[in-house]
Amino acid sequence: MATLIFPEHPSPVADAEALKKAFHGWGTNEKAIISILAHRNAVQRKLIRKAYEDMYAEDLVKRLESELSGDFEKAIYRWIMDPEDRDAVLLNVAIKHKPTPDYRVIVEFSTIYSPEELLAVKRAYQKRFKHSLEEDVARHTTGDLRKLLVAFASPYKYAGGEIDVKLAKSEADMLEDIVKEKALNHEEIIRIITTRSNAQIVATLNNYKDNNGTAITKHLKDDPANEYLAALLTAIRCINDPRKYYEKVLRNALNKSGTDEDALTRVIVTRAEKDLKDIKEVYYKRNSVALDHAIAKETSSHYKSFLLALLGKED
Amino acid sequence: MATLIFPEHPSPVADAEALKKAFHGWGTNEKAIISILAHRNAVQRKLIRKAYEDMYAEDLVKRLESELSGDFEKAIYRWIMDPEDRDAVLLNVAIKHKPTPDYRVIVEFSTIYSPEELLAVKRAYQKRFKHSLEEDVARHTTGDLRKLLVAFASPYKYAGGEIDVKLAKSEADMLEDIVKEKALNHEEIIRIITTRSNAQIVATLNNYKDNNGTAITKHLKDDPANEYLAALLTAIRCINDPRKYYEKVLRNALNKSGTDEDALTRVIVTRAEKDLKDIKEVYYKRNSVALDHAIAKETSSHYKSFLLALLGKED
Repeated sequence: MATLIFPEHPSPVADAEALKKAFHGWGTNEKAIISILAHRNAVQRKLIRKAYEDMYAEDLVKRLESELSGDFEKAIYRWIMDPEDRDAVLLNVAIKHKPTPDYRVIVEFSTIYSPEELLAVKRAYQKRFKHSLEEDVARHTTGDLRKLLVAFASPYKYAGGEIDVKLAKSEADMLEDIVKEKALNHEEIIRIITTRSNAQIVATLNNYKDNNGTAITKHLKDDPANEYLAALLTAIRCINDPRKYYEKVLRNALNKSGTDEDALTRVIVTRAEKDLKDIKEVYYKRNSVALDHAIAKETSSHYKSFLLALLGKED
Repeated sequence: MATLIFPEHPSPVADAEALKKAFHGWGTNEKAIISILAHRNAVQRKLIRKAYEDMYAEDLVKRLESELSGDFEKAIYRWIMDPEDRDAVLLNVAIKHKPTPDYRVIVEFSTIYSPEELLAVKRAYQKRFKHSLEEDVARHTTGDLRKLLVAFASPYKYAGGEIDVKLAKSEADMLEDIVKEKALNHEEIIRIITTRSNAQIVATLNNYKDNNGTAITKHLKDDPANEYLAALLTAIRCINDPRKYYEKVLRNALNKSGTDEDALTRVIVTRAEKDLKDIKEVYYKRNSVALDHAIAKETSSHYKSFLLALLGKED
C-alpha cells in the first residue's frame, strides 16, 4: 500500500496559483510548496505542471530548481517529474556515476519494476537521451558486470505467475553445480536470473534452498570489491522480496555516517505511491524504530518535512 | 510499398459466408478461398475471423487447417493469423528447429522489425507460449550463438535517426581491431550490432568501409559450419539493406533444388503488406527475371496461385 495522502479532485489552477505565490517576493515559501506537492499523485502533479505552464508561460520544473536548493531541491525535482521520466533520469545518473556505474539502480528497476513499467521507463529514456538504455549501460560498463547489467536492462520479461516445477528443479541443480565450481560468473547464472520470470526464479531459489539447507545468497560471498557479485546478490534480494530489499536500502542509507540522501530520496519518491506503507512495516519489524522517526533523526529542515509528508504524515 | 490488393470496405459477414460455402460439400473450393483471403489486409482478415466465429461458432483458423493441406495450408495459416501472432509462431518454430535453432528468423525479425513491431511480437509470444522470447532463445542455444541471439532478441532498441559521427568512427576502429585479431566472437562486436540503433550501425559500417576499402562482410569469412558467424553476417545484411536481404532469401529459396517453401512463404506473407513491391524490384534488378515468374516456375497449384495473388497479380 501507498503512503501518499492526497485529495480526490484538487484544482490544478488553484495549485499553480498557490505555487506562483510561494515563489513570489523575498525568499521562497517552502512550506506552501510542500503542502501542495507532497499531497498530489502523479496525474495531479502533471496537471499542475500543465496549468502552471499555460498560466505563466514558465516551466514549473525549472522554476522549482531555481527557487530551491540542496537535497530538498533534488527530492522535489524527482517528485515533480513524470515517474517514467524521473526513473530515466535516475538510471542515466547511475550509468554515468564515477568511477563505475551504480549498478544498484539498474538492478533495482530491472528486477522490481513490472516489464510494462520498465518498458515505459525505457521509452522515456530514449526520448530524453536519444539512446537506448541497454546501449548506454553497455557503453559504460566492462567485463562480467557489463554482461550482467546489459542482460538485466534488455529483456522484456514474462510477468505471468505460472511456474514450471521441473524447470525450477533442473535450474536449481544447475546453480548448485555452478556454486560448487565457484564459477559465479557462469553464463547460466546470468541467463537464469535475467531471463526467467520472477515467479520462476523464486521457485528455483526455493528449490536450491530446500536441497542445500541454505539460501544461495549465503553461498555467494558478499565481496564489496567484486561489483559483479554484489550486483548479482542485489538482484536476488530484489527478486526474492522487494520490500525487504527496500528496507535494507533505507537502513543502510540512514545508518551510514553522513546519510545517503540519494538512496533515501530514491526509495521514498519511487515507492510513496506504490508500497511504501508495506516497506515501513518491514522497517519497523526489523529495526524496532518507526521509519518516520529514523528519517526525522537523520534529516532536517524542508527536506525532512517533505519526506515525512510523502511518508503519510498529516499536516 | 506493399503488393497486396484489397477492396476498401469488404463485408466481413459476406466474406465469412463465402468461406463457409467454399468449405461446403465434397472437396474444398480453394479458388474461392484465395479470391477472398489473398485480397484482404490484416484488419479485414481479423474481422472475417471474428464474423465467422460469431456466425458459425467455429474457429476459422482450425477449419482452414482441416480443409487444406501442404504448403498451401501452411501459407494460409501464416496469413490468416494476426501478424504478431504469426511472427510469434514463426519464432517459436525457429527456436525449436532441430538439430539447432534457425537463427535466420530470429535475426531477421530482431534487426528489420521496428522496436515497436518487435515488442508486439514479443507480447504475442508471451501470451501464446507463457515464456518470454529471450528466455526461450537462451534455453535452446549454446555458446557464442546464444550470446548473439539472446542479445538480438532482448533489447528495446532506439529507433531514432540521429547519428553520433564520432562514435561511428571510434566503433568502426574497434571493429577493425577485432577483425585484425580475428576475435570475431568479441563481446564488443556483439554489443555494437545488438544494442546500437540501425542508423548508427550503418554509419559505423560505412566508416569501416571507408577506412578499409572493403565492407566488413568481406572480412567475416562465411563459414556455414560456424553458425555464430553466419548469424552475424545475416544481421549485418539485414541492417544494411533489408530489401537486398529479402531478395537474397527469395533467391536462395527458389534456386535451391527442392525449393525452400518455408522461407518463400515467410518473406511473401510477412512483407506483402509492407515492402514486397520494393523487394520485387530489387529481385528483378539482380536476377533479370520477375519474381512472379520465378515463383510461378518453382511452385504449383493453389500454393502458387495464393503467392502470386499476394504478389499483386490481378485475378
